Amino acid sequence: MVCLSVDVMGADSGVEELLKGILLFHSRCPECKFLIFGVESDLSLGLKNFSLSQNLFDVIYTPTYVRSQADVFSTLKAGEDTSMSCALRSVFSGQSQGAVSAGNTGVYLALSKSILKTLEGILRPAIVSQIPTCRGESIMLDLGGNLESSSKSLVQYALMGKVFCQKVLGVEFPSVGILNVGTELQKGKESLKEAYELLKNRKEINFYGYVEGDDISKGTVDVVVTDGFTGNIALKTGEGTMRMMSYMLNRVFQSSFYSRCVGFIARPFLQDFKAYFDPRVYNGALWLGVRGIAVKSHGGTDSIGFSHALETAYDMVRMNIVHEIQSTLLQHDFS
Amino acid sequence: MVCLSVDVMGADSGVEELLKGILLFHSRCPECKFLIFGVESDLSLGLKNFSLSQNLFDVIYTPTYVRSQADVFSTLKAGEDTSMSCALRSVFSGQSQGAVSAGNTGVYLALSKSILKTLEGILRPAIVSQIPTCRGESIMLDLGGNLESSSKSLVQYALMGKVFCQKVLGVEFPSVGILNVGTELQKGKESLKEAYELLKNRKEINFYGYVEGDDISKGTVDVVVTDGFTGNIALKTGEGTMRMMSYMLNRVFQSSFYSRCVGFIARPFLQDFKAYFDPRVYNGALWLGVRGIAVKSHGGTDSIGFSHALETAYDMVRMNIVHEIQSTLLQHDFS
Repeated sequence: MVCLSVDVMGADSGVEELLKGILLFHSRCPECKFLIFGVESDLSLGLKNFSLSQNLFDVIYTPTYVRSQADVFSTLKAGEDTSMSCALRSVFSGQSQGAVSAGNTGVYLALSKSILKTLEGILRPAIVSQIPTCRGESIMLDLGGNLESSSKSLVQYALMGKVFCQKVLGVEFPSVGILNVGTELQKGKESLKEAYELLKNRKEINFYGYVEGDDISKGTVDVVVTDGFTGNIALKTGEGTMRMMSYMLNRVFQSSFYSRCVGFIARPFLQDFKAYFDPRVYNGALWLGVRGIAVKSHGGTDSIGFSHALETAYDMVRMNIVHEIQSTLLQHDFS
Repeated sequence: MVCLSVDVMGADSGVEELLKGILLFHSRCPECKFLIFGVESDLSLGLKNFSLSQNLFDVIYTPTYVRSQADVFSTLKAGEDTSMSCALRSVFSGQSQGAVSAGNTGVYLALSKSILKTLEGILRPAIVSQIPTCRGESIMLDLGGNLESSSKSLVQYALMGKVFCQKVLGVEFPSVGILNVGTELQKGKESLKEAYELLKNRKEINFYGYVEGDDISKGTVDVVVTDGFTGNIALKTGEGTMRMMSYMLNRVFQSSFYSRCVGFIARPFLQDFKAYFDPRVYNGALWLGVRGIAVKSHGGTDSIGFSHALETAYDMVRMNIVHEIQSTLLQHDFS
């Protein structure tokens, strides 16, 4: 039986919305157990409206939690028992198989590294997630774990991304591209050019070469490799553009009485269209390269989005992704 | 009378498509003159299908042109008379007031700097363009001129962007934001933190602070300031996402006979929706910070898109944007 540790503190959407998300996922997957971590004052208030079976839900009150504005360095130095650190420690100790949090990203990543530790040989863990494309789905990493990435880190992202893509999207030999400002060899920063040279000689990678920003949504490659700064901007720019287009689509069908009538008839198709891009479905980014499952949910997501982040963690546990990544990395020399 | 120099070589879409674009813009703006630069073998072939009035169109054959794969350094070193360099030199000598090219971006920027020269005090010119948002339009720079930007360059982008926004979008005191991976002060690279400190103390800038990728399409600020690498990726990611969504919207209305019928009724609204995001309307990025108007069109655009790039150049000439930028920069100390 899979058990997940859930930190329900520090999200913009509030404790109650995340608890709703847990119940929503529970209704889809009744065999999963949950350890719920939070500060008593907030969590007990949130729990008032729910009746949770004691067999499947354990509530653990912690002295404090990580604020959304908290600084990574001072939080690590303080070393307090926060809902986030306790959730991660329960994964480390084997009480659960994966952690999910919608709290402070930087602190969560730093705590994951210090509590779960990085996999052998990994320079820096990366944040990975699936993204919608014209061809279905691709995966992209790093989405914000590290502001800058060396060429060796980019090669590790490529290899970890390959394994993740094989397991999650079922692509046998996924194509891998480096995100750049052009596809010509002379384009881009030095670290990208070095990574290009390293990757083109690796037979275990189906290396496509450079891809540009618009190749992400074209689905030109299965795995898009980039540094965390660029990846984060690209991810959020894409999400923002989707929201803008959904908003404008609503607007054209609200412009007159006739357009509202047409919009009413077209509603099922417009809903199908929007469902395809619903960012909540893609909620749940994984730290790839640490010794355990740690999934990050958007801080502002609702219960539906949070339930998808829990599902991601659940799937990762069942796919034994950490073991898969470690054994792949051990087969290859990164020195 | 405005006269534009047009380099019709080196575009993916071919000489004839760009010539069509010139005629299209000519039909909208019959008072504009054109100097058309190209290699005789290609250009004379393209011109066969058009009859151009000799009063408004001057054709200048050049010995060679800049290939799309050409390297910046070797092209500058060779110093050949290409259609691109001749077009820019005609702006420098005063034969025309602005240049437009759909050729190699890196070479075009480098030639613009070496032929037109940068404005006094400018560290590095930037590429600027308008982008669609939920609130109308914003402007973003640098979109690919410089892979990395110092904090001082970012401050100059902010000031140039402000003037551009005032002139082009008519916003009196535009808000300016720095593109980053979070809005908290401790987030991001050192150059961004330094630029933040420099900008928050400048009274002539309506400084908003940091913005994230999804703020671009929200229209959170009027001017988005970023380095050229990130700006290029964000711009293309946004454009790609728009194309993906247009494609998927077509697909949902093609899925069955009934959906095609509904799509037919909804067509005027779907067309309105797509027109709002048509990347061709936003074609035409300006080099901001050089002593002359140089506009870059997408290499793969069609005649409609190219006509919009010509319109951008025409508008920039009429708005006297170069003089406006220079006089604003001279009022402020950037040392």
